[in-house]
Amino acid sequence: MLGHLVRSNSHLSPCDKPVSEIGEFSLIERIKKILPTASSSDLILGIGDDAAVIRIDEGRALVATCDILVEDVHFRLANINAYQLGRRAIAVNQSDIASMGGRPTFALVSLALPQNLPVDHFDELFRGMGDQMREFSGHIIGGNIARSKEGLMVDVFMLGEVDPRIMLTRSGARPDDRIMVTGRPGASGAGLMILEKYGSDYPRKFKALVNAHLQPKPRVETGQIIAATGIATAMIDVSDGLAADLNHICEASGEGAELDLACLPLPGNLAEVAALAGRKNWEMALFGGEDYELLFTVKPETTPEEIDRISNRSNTPITEIGRITGETGVMLGINSTGERMEIKPKGWDHFG
Amino acid sequence: MLGHLVRSNSHLSPCDKPVSEIGEFSLIERIKKILPTASSSDLILGIGDDAAVIRIDEGRALVATCDILVEDVHFRLANINAYQLGRRAIAVNQSDIASMGGRPTFALVSLALPQNLPVDHFDELFRGMGDQMREFSGHIIGGNIARSKEGLMVDVFMLGEVDPRIMLTRSGARPDDRIMVTGRPGASGAGLMILEKYGSDYPRKFKALVNAHLQPKPRVETGQIIAATGIATAMIDVSDGLAADLNHICEASGEGAELDLACLPLPGNLAEVAALAGRKNWEMALFGGEDYELLFTVKPETTPEEIDRISNRSNTPITEIGRITGETGVMLGINSTGERMEIKPKGWDHFG
Repeated sequence: MLGHLVRSNSHLSPCDKPVSEIGEFSLIERIKKILPTASSSDLILGIGDDAAVIRIDEGRALVATCDILVEDVHFRLANINAYQLGRRAIAVNQSDIASMGGRPTFALVSLALPQNLPVDHFDELFRGMGDQMREFSGHIIGGNIARSKEGLMVDVFMLGEVDPRIMLTRSGARPDDRIMVTGRPGASGAGLMILEKYGSDYPRKFKALVNAHLQPKPRVETGQIIAATGIATAMIDVSDGLAADLNHICEASGEGAELDLACLPLPGNLAEVAALAGRKNWEMALFGGEDYELLFTVKPETTPEEIDRISNRSNTPITEIGRITGETGVMLGINSTGERMEIKPKGWDHFG
Repeated sequence: MLGHLVRSNSHLSPCDKPVSEIGEFSLIERIKKILPTASSSDLILGIGDDAAVIRIDEGRALVATCDILVEDVHFRLANINAYQLGRRAIAVNQSDIASMGGRPTFALVSLALPQNLPVDHFDELFRGMGDQMREFSGHIIGGNIARSKEGLMVDVFMLGEVDPRIMLTRSGARPDDRIMVTGRPGASGAGLMILEKYGSDYPRKFKALVNAHLQPKPRVETGQIIAATGIATAMIDVSDGLAADLNHICEASGEGAELDLACLPLPGNLAEVAALAGRKNWEMALFGGEDYELLFTVKPETTPEEIDRISNRSNTPITEIGRITGETGVMLGINSTGERMEIKPKGWDHFG
């Protein structure tokens, strides 16, 4: 989804540079200035979170999001098969709905297909999409097929439902709130590194990491359970990377954060991939991206038992990794010896 | 939207041909066999019409559609500027909502941008999209920006609202229903021919035709007025071409049609373009495509006054052009001398 968008009336200067030079986040700033303020009373949440939210009635709202996958930008058909790609295209959208505590329901699928795409791949793509929708009792209800000039493009529009009274956004975190994450972020990024290095004949010991990349499991039930408890104050899914997504929460909430680097729940074999890449373990965990885990903040008084209850009910590991601070825009990492360092969010810029 | 989709449980044979060899309509047939039947009671209309329809409550339903524009497949930046492209991308989706008698409300926009796209073009694209949404008091509420490998791709996901008790679909036409069309179909196709032949320095006498192509005006109010009268039995927007879209109504309704070719409301200067193209006037009107006019059927007993009232209230020319017959799948054209000929729908195949 387009990044956090606060209305601005300042003047937009012409710019004859190419989009690659100014980058994704400046482009989003420009959209802010161009689009008129959405004045509809039905609109609970417009551009700026993981999904837009439209009121249906007091206890019911529609969630809408979209995510596009472009061949050779977001995936390579040498590394992911069409079935997996179909599941992935649906899963990343289900994850956006999950991050608000919502339930994905219906999807529309827009495809741009290269002329030479084998029909069998087309079939497999739809099998994957249909299977992934079904995981959460959803359905593909429409879409569009066009020819591409080159390469495959899969664009999924996902609808969902949420109770607006318990829904979570990026903007509710407050100082001393505790930062929690599901699963083991960094696995997907490490898996991608393995695929980029070895291709599909990668050493099998890395299978779990590669699968985390190819077959992300959106935390749909977990997100709903977290939202229903009422203890969480903000939530996002880890798509850009743990640090970048925590930064999205900090920016939207107007706060900062401190991360306990020694507490990060590292995936198995991550250290080995970090060594191959010449990076630190915690860097792999913070900057990996595309994990589709849930990153959320809870009220300071939340007890370990309350977290355990969510974890047990959703069968999802949850780890406390830090706390929100009042230092707007500052993210610090504290290592095992108590050393403090600033963490740059390294936001995923799709033009970088 | 994906074409008419009737559930089938027959076996899907593997196919190692490229998608271009089997074509769009066979691909849609394959999707039918792959996707599980949508069993949700909330789903009023799934894959198969201009838009999907989801029940909110007795008198209110959500309409959802998407339409993708791919550079050098659906448009050339030599012929359309970024502002016009933005308006067009929104307008074609508003038209799908209009064709059911609905009101477009919110849009999400997915963009794949080439790295070298000038930022000014990006700005203009959003200005055009914002302006076109505003025409019908709608808002862009989210989206997604990605890098493309080559070329610009604009994919719009449009939401709207409709009263399900009066909503129109493709499938309600019955024998002896009379066929009506708004405006003057064929203008857009003729305008495209002019652009393809002369480029943007085309002779100005063709300006109205070219504008019909570049700046289609979706018939949103007209569609709502038609639906509200209760006299219409089926409706579709003319995107694939008058003949192809009438064929969609015939197929979905299980009927045939007879067209009075002498009654087709020809756009000004169409004859001249037809002569340049070596085609007949009525061929230009029937096979042009992308007019975004409304094609609808009304009950046999409908009076000219009832049609005039719609026309006056919506300030839209409406012409009677033929009638529905019980000859399933047969479309006949009758010329001024009473000669009858079969009309092939020439459906717009996006891989043809």
